[in-house]
Amino acid sequence: MAKYSIGVDFGTLSGRSLLVNVETGEELASATKEYTHSVMSEALPSGKRLPPDYALQHPMDYLEVFTETVPSVIAKSGVDPNDIIGLGIDFTACTVLPVMKDGTPLCFFDKFEDEPHAYVKLWKHHAAQDKANDLNAIAGKRGEAFLARYGGKISSEWMIPKIWEVYDEAPDVYNTCDSFIEAADWVIWQLTGVQTRNSCTAGYKAIWNKKEGYPSKDFFAALDAGLENLVEEKLNCPITPIGTRAGKISPFVADALGLSENTCVAVANVDAHVTMPALKIDGPGKMLAIIGTSTCHILLGENERYVPGICGVVEDGVYPGYFGYEAGQSCVGDHFAWFVNNCVPKTYYDAAEAEGISVHEYLTAKAAAKKPGESGIIALDWWNGNRSILVDVDLTGLFLGMTLQTVPEDLYRALIEATAFGTKTIIDNFNSHGVPVTEFYASGGISQKNELAMQIYADIINLPVHIGGSAQGPALGSAIFGAVAAGSENGGYDDVFTAAKAMGSLKDKVYMPIPENAAVYEKLYQEYTRLHDYFGRGANDCMKRIKNLKGEVIAKKAAEEASSVLETSTANGDSPTLPDGYNSAE
Amino acid sequence: MAKYSIGVDFGTLSGRSLLVNVETGEELASATKEYTHSVMSEALPSGKRLPPDYALQHPMDYLEVFTETVPSVIAKSGVDPNDIIGLGIDFTACTVLPVMKDGTPLCFFDKFEDEPHAYVKLWKHHAAQDKANDLNAIAGKRGEAFLARYGGKISSEWMIPKIWEVYDEAPDVYNTCDSFIEAADWVIWQLTGVQTRNSCTAGYKAIWNKKEGYPSKDFFAALDAGLENLVEEKLNCPITPIGTRAGKISPFVADALGLSENTCVAVANVDAHVTMPALKIDGPGKMLAIIGTSTCHILLGENERYVPGICGVVEDGVYPGYFGYEAGQSCVGDHFAWFVNNCVPKTYYDAAEAEGISVHEYLTAKAAAKKPGESGIIALDWWNGNRSILVDVDLTGLFLGMTLQTVPEDLYRALIEATAFGTKTIIDNFNSHGVPVTEFYASGGISQKNELAMQIYADIINLPVHIGGSAQGPALGSAIFGAVAAGSENGGYDDVFTAAKAMGSLKDKVYMPIPENAAVYEKLYQEYTRLHDYFGRGANDCMKRIKNLKGEVIAKKAAEEASSVLETSTANGDSPTLPDGYNSAE
Repeated sequence: MAKYSIGVDFGTLSGRSLLVNVETGEELASATKEYTHSVMSEALPSGKRLPPDYALQHPMDYLEVFTETVPSVIAKSGVDPNDIIGLGIDFTACTVLPVMKDGTPLCFFDKFEDEPHAYVKLWKHHAAQDKANDLNAIAGKRGEAFLARYGGKISSEWMIPKIWEVYDEAPDVYNTCDSFIEAADWVIWQLTGVQTRNSCTAGYKAIWNKKEGYPSKDFFAALDAGLENLVEEKLNCPITPIGTRAGKISPFVADALGLSENTCVAVANVDAHVTMPALKIDGPGKMLAIIGTSTCHILLGENERYVPGICGVVEDGVYPGYFGYEAGQSCVGDHFAWFVNNCVPKTYYDAAEAEGISVHEYLTAKAAAKKPGESGIIALDWWNGNRSILVDVDLTGLFLGMTLQTVPEDLYRALIEATAFGTKTIIDNFNSHGVPVTEFYASGGISQKNELAMQIYADIINLPVHIGGSAQGPALGSAIFGAVAAGSENGGYDDVFTAAKAMGSLKDKVYMPIPENAAVYEKLYQEYTRLHDYFGRGANDCMKRIKNLKGEVIAKKAAEEASSVLETSTANGDSPTLPDGYNSAE
Repeated sequence: MAKYSIGVDFGTLSGRSLLVNVETGEELASATKEYTHSVMSEALPSGKRLPPDYALQHPMDYLEVFTETVPSVIAKSGVDPNDIIGLGIDFTACTVLPVMKDGTPLCFFDKFEDEPHAYVKLWKHHAAQDKANDLNAIAGKRGEAFLARYGGKISSEWMIPKIWEVYDEAPDVYNTCDSFIEAADWVIWQLTGVQTRNSCTAGYKAIWNKKEGYPSKDFFAALDAGLENLVEEKLNCPITPIGTRAGKISPFVADALGLSENTCVAVANVDAHVTMPALKIDGPGKMLAIIGTSTCHILLGENERYVPGICGVVEDGVYPGYFGYEAGQSCVGDHFAWFVNNCVPKTYYDAAEAEGISVHEYLTAKAAAKKPGESGIIALDWWNGNRSILVDVDLTGLFLGMTLQTVPEDLYRALIEATAFGTKTIIDNFNSHGVPVTEFYASGGISQKNELAMQIYADIINLPVHIGGSAQGPALGSAIFGAVAAGSENGGYDDVFTAAKAMGSLKDKVYMPIPENAAVYEKLYQEYTRLHDYFGRGANDCMKRIKNLKGEVIAKKAAEEASSVLETSTANGDSPTLPDGYNSAE
């Protein structure tokens, strides 16, 4: 009798369930639910306005994903719920919320309905940047060893800055809640009735280390005396390695979702990291790049090495028994979208329309007709700063080599090449710091859709590029972890390596490097590297100075406009009108 | 009784006559004639195909300009031909042709009808680049002092490389012709029956110097033994200073054009240089920038200084009694046209159409809403190389500072700013080499049409920008020189300074630097200069390496395509088909 597992992938805007055959990896059914409250960056459901850089979510939306999509995939697939042996989930991270002892989110209480800090802070909530800056300065001054594990810098997107922000700005929330928890772990708690904390989010997002645990009390006290006991008071739950079982589904939830009470639930995981087994990746040396709007690189190593400029290294963070390394490029597909929206002339739109294809396709076809080096353009892919390996959000983009004969596809192709050079830089950095990269695997939207980009990647990194067989890599990965949670005694697997081999899949097409292209790109990569180092390592900090000047000019302009609004109003004899969001009367 | 002068401006595609009141400078009538043969870059009138980089013209077209436009302006204005006291002309340069002793162009003979080298070589004929390279290498090796007067390099557009090209590739033309002459001087010869050679084209384009004459016989012999006597054999005519009279119009021509036989004709001039008096410029320190597709800078000095990176310094080259300095930017308006054609999205076209304005206007309005520094973008204005002060055609363009929030007007404004930074670099270079610039005057299309650009220039160079009052600066300048040729005894002027004061004009609007903007631009100029020197002075020659690689790739691709055409044809059993221009049967 065939057995099945369900993977549930919680993205930024929606959640998706995928029902998979445990023996073959065949995907039988999937269903998606858009979050009812989407991302709240302007206002709370009550209408209360939010400050800049906020990105909140409502935890009820996650539960709706289960109640709507799990019954749906069971019904669509027609399988017997008793044959569904496991369930795994993956989530964006760090996506964190304050909860009571029984797991109830604080935002569910009327008292906190209007309090932004009582809601889920989504990964891209950026209002804790000041806290991250202070944390990094203090950690650097104290010589905290953990910094080296995170490429030298803790991001404002991560858990400690976000908790510190609550502590400072909403002490009532901080004092009332029992703990802060990743939404990933919170949904597992809701499914099983048992609280667990997974080693992936703890390691990559909460500065936890298998051997050393969280940072010391002294460190937290250095942030603020009141945070000295942060771990004991607000993160007091043991960490469970990825690849283990959180528990069985609770009878109440099994009934609500139409699952058997025997369904085993895996500990939570992160969307990028969970994708590794979906591509059959079973050990060190095989880099996975999830290439979408941005790119996340995951790689296993046998040992812990300090690799500068990566996002983090976590023992058991990806697969049990290995050190999981994460690196990233903060802007990849976003470049191409920016280009199509801002730099493609009307004539191209018209021609694409006449051919009945998208502008992306039209542009890609034109770019594909060019040879490596033919555009004469080189770019630095820093439109959204540089994550790895420079870890610098203040770097900006560069195009070099334009002539009067330069056409849009030259610039477009150069942008694709630049993101591939960025990936090669990350690979070289791992190789030269004792974490070898010998194979390359790609998942994510661009890997599925853009053949030109994948060939360019193969030519530039000079390695074959293997493409994930599933268009839903994270959900498949979660289903694989679900099958591991069930274990062989229930028809699943006892380890993720065996499960990956059986359930993971790759496309038949492998993009092989073309030696002639690789030779040209090797020369261009030298130029890229020289520019990368010149602008990125302090020889000429003009990008930062220009960006800083821009910030000053914009701030001054805004102040002048605001004061001229006031002056005009006063001159008219009216009472001053403040811009939206500054309603003093409320 | 009012007196009048006619200025005739010979451009790249057409010639234009302007009839002007000598006392007031009032423009009474103008008329334009497109050249019948335009620019011949593909084929001769016979259909004979031309090699790449050719740009030829037909001398008969110039005579048609006289016969069509001079009678037209006389008729339109209704003035008495007896009151037209002078005529001056200006021309593109170096635009050169081989002629017989009586002035007949060689291309008028049937024998040479199919011989490209018998025609006029237009300024932008670029097929003599090899000759220019060899000439520069030889001159450099010999330590020829003249190189310093031309910023260190003789251009392929100038006269000696173009003559050398004829000598090598069409010895029959070289041996048959009596001389090579600038088209500027040739049309004066046709008007007056007297051959003259003006000091402007001789100085700037033919390596002639008032004190030292042409280069030595030794130098020419070093190019090729057969060129030793080039000057005596092919350039044997004395040089006449700008601002003097070539002669009176010949009776035959006067009759044909409807002019009085007393009409005095000025020695020929060059389109940029002739514009100085049209803006009332009367002495040193006042830089004129003619800002169009490219920019030409003209400046007078009291002394001869060696200023690196300029186009040339010529005694009597602009005004008698002064050293005329010329510098240039090889790409200005061309940048903006490239941008509009390649980088402006459909949404902007649609919005401009909805507002009933051009895309240029729409983009300019959006760019004008930004403050200096607000775009966060800096550009190097090298889409067509850098003329002054780096004298390097292999440099290419750069955009730096892009983010995902960058919009097209940010890049557009940065391009305008970059051309202004380029002009400031030229000004600073003159100032630091003993040729002070104290005032700034602008002429040409962009100065007339683009207020945003002119304000940006004022803010960046931190000098008031005065704009020429006439939209036809060169033709007005030629008319002024015509009035000087007539002299006060005929109702004209005895010197160009007095004539300029009376006949030249400036717009009332002067663009004044805004101190707040100038302060921001001073900071950005430092960034521009640092990038300019880094990429332009050898610290990182990546632009050249990338351009060179591009050339190799394109050449290889072309060779592969050609051979695949041959293979395909052979495989099909057909005889090989060669691409156009390679018709072996002819």
